[in-house]
Amino acid sequence: MTLSDNPVVTELLEPASARVAELVESMTLEQKIAQLVGFWVDQGDDVVAPLAGEMATSTKYDEATEHGLGHLTRVYGTRPVEPVERAAWLWAEQRRLREASGHGIAAIVHEESLTGLAAWKAATFPTPLAWGAAFDPELVERMGRLIGESMRRLGVHQALAPVLDVIRDPRWGRVDECIAEDPYVVGTIATAYVRGMQDAGVHATLKHFVGYSDSRAGRNHAPVHAGHRELADVFLPPFEMAVRDGGVRSVMNSYTDIDGVPVASDPTLLTDLLRGQWGFDGVVVSDYFAVAFLETMHAVAADRTEAARLALAAGIDVELPSGDAYAAPLLEGVRDGRIDEALVDRALVRVLTQKESLGLLDPDESEPPSAIDLDTPEHRAVAREIAERSLVLLRNDGVLPLAEPRRIAVIGPNGDDASALMGCYSFANHVLAHVPHVPLGFEIPTVAEALRAELPGAEITTVAGCAVEGDDRSGFADATAAAAASDVAVVVVGDRAGLFGRGTVGEGNDAESLELPGVQRELVEQIAATGTPVVLVLLTGRPYALSWALDGASAPAAVVQAFFPGEEGGAAIARVLSGAVSPSGRLPVSLPRSAGAQPYSYLHPILGGNSDVTSTDATPVRPFGFGLGYTTFARTELTVDAAVPAGGSFEASVTVTNTGERAGAEIVQLYAHDVVGSVVRPVAQLLGYARMELEPGASARVHFDVPTSRLAFTGRSGERIVEPGRIDLWVGASVDDRETEARVEIVGDVHRVTAADSRLVGVRVE
Amino acid sequence: MTLSDNPVVTELLEPASARVAELVESMTLEQKIAQLVGFWVDQGDDVVAPLAGEMATSTKYDEATEHGLGHLTRVYGTRPVEPVERAAWLWAEQRRLREASGHGIAAIVHEESLTGLAAWKAATFPTPLAWGAAFDPELVERMGRLIGESMRRLGVHQALAPVLDVIRDPRWGRVDECIAEDPYVVGTIATAYVRGMQDAGVHATLKHFVGYSDSRAGRNHAPVHAGHRELADVFLPPFEMAVRDGGVRSVMNSYTDIDGVPVASDPTLLTDLLRGQWGFDGVVVSDYFAVAFLETMHAVAADRTEAARLALAAGIDVELPSGDAYAAPLLEGVRDGRIDEALVDRALVRVLTQKESLGLLDPDESEPPSAIDLDTPEHRAVAREIAERSLVLLRNDGVLPLAEPRRIAVIGPNGDDASALMGCYSFANHVLAHVPHVPLGFEIPTVAEALRAELPGAEITTVAGCAVEGDDRSGFADATAAAAASDVAVVVVGDRAGLFGRGTVGEGNDAESLELPGVQRELVEQIAATGTPVVLVLLTGRPYALSWALDGASAPAAVVQAFFPGEEGGAAIARVLSGAVSPSGRLPVSLPRSAGAQPYSYLHPILGGNSDVTSTDATPVRPFGFGLGYTTFARTELTVDAAVPAGGSFEASVTVTNTGERAGAEIVQLYAHDVVGSVVRPVAQLLGYARMELEPGASARVHFDVPTSRLAFTGRSGERIVEPGRIDLWVGASVDDRETEARVEIVGDVHRVTAADSRLVGVRVE
Repeated sequence: MTLSDNPVVTELLEPASARVAELVESMTLEQKIAQLVGFWVDQGDDVVAPLAGEMATSTKYDEATEHGLGHLTRVYGTRPVEPVERAAWLWAEQRRLREASGHGIAAIVHEESLTGLAAWKAATFPTPLAWGAAFDPELVERMGRLIGESMRRLGVHQALAPVLDVIRDPRWGRVDECIAEDPYVVGTIATAYVRGMQDAGVHATLKHFVGYSDSRAGRNHAPVHAGHRELADVFLPPFEMAVRDGGVRSVMNSYTDIDGVPVASDPTLLTDLLRGQWGFDGVVVSDYFAVAFLETMHAVAADRTEAARLALAAGIDVELPSGDAYAAPLLEGVRDGRIDEALVDRALVRVLTQKESLGLLDPDESEPPSAIDLDTPEHRAVAREIAERSLVLLRNDGVLPLAEPRRIAVIGPNGDDASALMGCYSFANHVLAHVPHVPLGFEIPTVAEALRAELPGAEITTVAGCAVEGDDRSGFADATAAAAASDVAVVVVGDRAGLFGRGTVGEGNDAESLELPGVQRELVEQIAATGTPVVLVLLTGRPYALSWALDGASAPAAVVQAFFPGEEGGAAIARVLSGAVSPSGRLPVSLPRSAGAQPYSYLHPILGGNSDVTSTDATPVRPFGFGLGYTTFARTELTVDAAVPAGGSFEASVTVTNTGERAGAEIVQLYAHDVVGSVVRPVAQLLGYARMELEPGASARVHFDVPTSRLAFTGRSGERIVEPGRIDLWVGASVDDRETEARVEIVGDVHRVTAADSRLVGVRVE
Repeated sequence: MTLSDNPVVTELLEPASARVAELVESMTLEQKIAQLVGFWVDQGDDVVAPLAGEMATSTKYDEATEHGLGHLTRVYGTRPVEPVERAAWLWAEQRRLREASGHGIAAIVHEESLTGLAAWKAATFPTPLAWGAAFDPELVERMGRLIGESMRRLGVHQALAPVLDVIRDPRWGRVDECIAEDPYVVGTIATAYVRGMQDAGVHATLKHFVGYSDSRAGRNHAPVHAGHRELADVFLPPFEMAVRDGGVRSVMNSYTDIDGVPVASDPTLLTDLLRGQWGFDGVVVSDYFAVAFLETMHAVAADRTEAARLALAAGIDVELPSGDAYAAPLLEGVRDGRIDEALVDRALVRVLTQKESLGLLDPDESEPPSAIDLDTPEHRAVAREIAERSLVLLRNDGVLPLAEPRRIAVIGPNGDDASALMGCYSFANHVLAHVPHVPLGFEIPTVAEALRAELPGAEITTVAGCAVEGDDRSGFADATAAAAASDVAVVVVGDRAGLFGRGTVGEGNDAESLELPGVQRELVEQIAATGTPVVLVLLTGRPYALSWALDGASAPAAVVQAFFPGEEGGAAIARVLSGAVSPSGRLPVSLPRSAGAQPYSYLHPILGGNSDVTSTDATPVRPFGFGLGYTTFARTELTVDAAVPAGGSFEASVTVTNTGERAGAEIVQLYAHDVVGSVVRPVAQLLGYARMELEPGASARVHFDVPTSRLAFTGRSGERIVEPGRIDLWVGASVDDRETEARVEIVGDVHRVTAADSRLVGVRVE
């Protein structure tokens, strides 16, 4: 391929600064290529990326950096190291790399940061499913800013977060890292994360562009079979929001192939759409070793040189973190004419432009921090607040909140284990679970410890009963005895997050069954059989099939879905159980009926639901948006403009009243159904949402300002359009609850959506 | 839309005969529209099509046919009626319809015919999975001809078969009606069916064009999420073969929507591809009520008039069998200008051209048959032969063939029930299962009855043990007692085929679990625990998760997978158990690991298989192509041309030797893997196959003449191409067995596949 074949490519070469343009002119080919490569220094033996053992140790660091380096991978986050000591090394190393580059160019330092900077002694926030359940972008933005500030102080420039994959199948282990099943919830919350992070001066990275969560049968790295319309209407919108509204500076490709084309080799996605249509002008980095995978896992390249050519031509700018394993075959390809040097230059311009904006082309006279607190009271406060707002009360026969302090048995493998509060990308979990000889460096109270602190008058006993995994029932007797001797049993079960076969959820830990792992369901049922009221608390990284626990004859008295609530999660759970806080989380994902009923999404068209022509039941056990509290709400008087032009916006207003006897928070959820479309439309779609606190008896009128572009879809021509026609609207306690209804008529001509259309629903409360 | 917008449409109006052109000129609008409509006369109360109760009884027959009629639906096949009596009615009715049409035009009479004419007293052949397992297109062609001859004699003109949906998910109930998981096996066998049927003068109908089998999560009528490449490379090829090589005269749309577009409203599939590219010049009929479903189930039309317009514009010519419910809104639409009358004329020309070729525009002086035998010895012989060749021996520790006659207990709900031998589209099953007061009219020996006939010296007892469905274990004691008192237990379990909630498999009977229905697995395990050797026989309409029965510690001594083997299936099973016949069926579909591991296809790329980056196991319990016999085969000396141009063909030759001690049949399976492609390629693909009988010790050299088009795929540009590069080839006992290997190099330029390229692999044996 020559660049002149593709006008987008040529055009995108233009906007470099004079300084960058001069640099490109003066650099040797070796120096250029060094800027397109990442290196994983001091990686160690842990498998912390797919096939990392095989892929990353192929070159020596010194040799790989003799002409400088594009990216330094996980300086702080691969193993427990004292941050300030590591910073001292990094500051010196950057001086060396500037020198080696021949032009004073430092490396971009990137780290994982999904639930906090993935480094020793850094705060561990709740995992993304909890952000989704909290429906609170402002809090996530505060969290992103805190994480970014820590990173910035440690000399880290780029965060490999957030994850914008829209959940399509709970069998996939990486659901643990995802926010929600709804693209708008994902888009708004991920954009908030990006904004917070980048406000702190650290570049965010959108993961994983695109389609990864649709991997076949929920298997990690499996092919994606989606069509272009599903891609455009479900998977891409969150990325578009984070690019256009969040101004994100970096994007990471998805490992998958979509309908046969690996994303890492697809110029229509990485260049034409991302840059040409959306105007992205940052850097596309590969998911670790993704360029090499074009040869080894997709087999669209016969060797690494061909893989490099395909990836560069498609729009991958930097291969992380392959070192010479990428640089050498790329160099060879340019030298023997298989790769056009202009492709190298195009990527180089982008990397140098990014480095220019980060100050990495300038001399650095700063000193490394001599002391740093990565887990301040502010971190704790934000972590607590998200956790508290994320807890979803799924069932309550009145046992919650717990009455006056009394005898409480905390049972279950997750009841007294801090590791159970954290996801697979949480560094603290890594330390606790896998390097237990190293102290964590700070306190993460377990559920049991937090309950003791919250209810000092109560007599609290703890017993595991069983492990998360395996079939050892030898602890059941102690557990049932403890329950029988107590007034209430708080049974805390669920997942253990981990990577690649360690744990029950997380990257590489996919599931063929959505029953709780191991013998945990049996444990719960045996505890319930004692007659002691059971409060079931689920610390999970995916939604499980819970009809037995929610609707069964011997269902627990109360069920709280906590996902992974982070370092303050134990305290948050304790405060919800005690009644200090009314639960206000809502399901960001449908609770599945079974693994055999997957994939399922609430965004299905008529045919995707139940019907007379199939014997299977598609309905989830609890719907998207569902969640109880200690008070109740009524939604009334939904009103809306009667008609609106297809390119306009309309106001939908609803009254929300706290009809219970205590204060609480409601997530006001505005849903829509496009009744007739030129292509098939979902039976329900969340248009907008608003979290609000209300005192008992209080009412508020919530106004949603909805651009019709929220109803856009990809028409038969392939363009995103808004069509005239009737739209049914409703607000209720979940997607399935049409408590108050209205309708709006979209009128006039079909509207073609452009960048100028707002992607956001405004919210105003009076 | 105006016709001039679409050159394909205008062009396709041309080729009508002068006679048809004159007819179109002289017909009133009412007369025209009457030709585009089907009517289900005497439908009765049975639900035999989706939502039929709601849809079909909306008009009265006399009114609906006052201007003639396009199609008469299921004259013989809705309920048990004496065929010759019904024929007398039909002959008279056709005279009336000729008169009513104003132009002497009779109706096309169509019937279901998947496993034989779906009429009382007609032969019931094995179901399509059994055809697939037999890998024997010639036999299927003979079957098709026999079915067609019966239909032709009864005045039936069109057969609503075969089904060309490529199996993608065994949860789907209609897997019962499908041939195989491999598009080439589906294409060759379905084309053979078409050829046999049409040689007998009856028009075959391809079902269901296209994508239906990919319905989400295996739910009937659920949306299809496939991309265009999967559509082109997996779902469409069998249809292309039956159109181009089989010359099929009719095609039926799929109910589904693909990536948001209902097939019934998609001109790119129904017109541009089918007619424009493939040259199909027959008639496209709707699956029952599919046009109405554009309003009610896809919501792409606001009313029936709009639905009619969309369907006609897309290329649906006849709506079956909605009567006035289609005709009236269509008439209204043409009258008020919403529908261009030219769209009506386009469909009309096609229907009249079809009727002209069937003689339905000519006067008919024939008399109805006064006697007819729909189940002759020839029918029986073909039914038996397919059944015998379809039985797949999955496991055998030596118990089979059964030794000298002795005490045999035939246990299980399917052991002594004729209904268990038949699929959901088998009329005899309908009579046996649902109208038991009507005699079948002929004998269908059960497995137990056939064993008694086959082994007259044996003492054979029968006990059901349990039903197919439900949790009644009260018969277990009798069953285990019978087993304990016998030398061998033949345990016959599986499915009961039926429609829409009646039965465990068949149209509308989808599954969230792939465990055997009810308590049948428990029954098998309890029988096995008696210590009496167990021969497990599975009469199922889908592959079930059988690792417990094949690899478990207490697995049965032998396992025979029979699918639904039809009226001679009992005898075929008896002859295999006795040893009169060596089993030679091979799995036409992978045996699944679990419902939670679906969808899965053996045609997966590298990423779709097992890897270090997922904890789940994608491998099937037994692979595609697997099957044992009473003898063994060796495949050796695979040789192939070293290099071949991309538009050429190559010869691959292999020696097959019967290495056992008795005669038997082998299915020689030639597999390929395109090592590097410009898009992702499957790790294995069946290129060609050949059934052959060999005496013990005998060898044969099998030559496959393979056009490189068998390796074609849809490239990035959207065209089907053959690329240069290395192809690995192997022959073995299944897709997973690389017993003998070779490789061929495709050389030269990329080849664009055209209609001139052969789609077939030639086979020669010496």
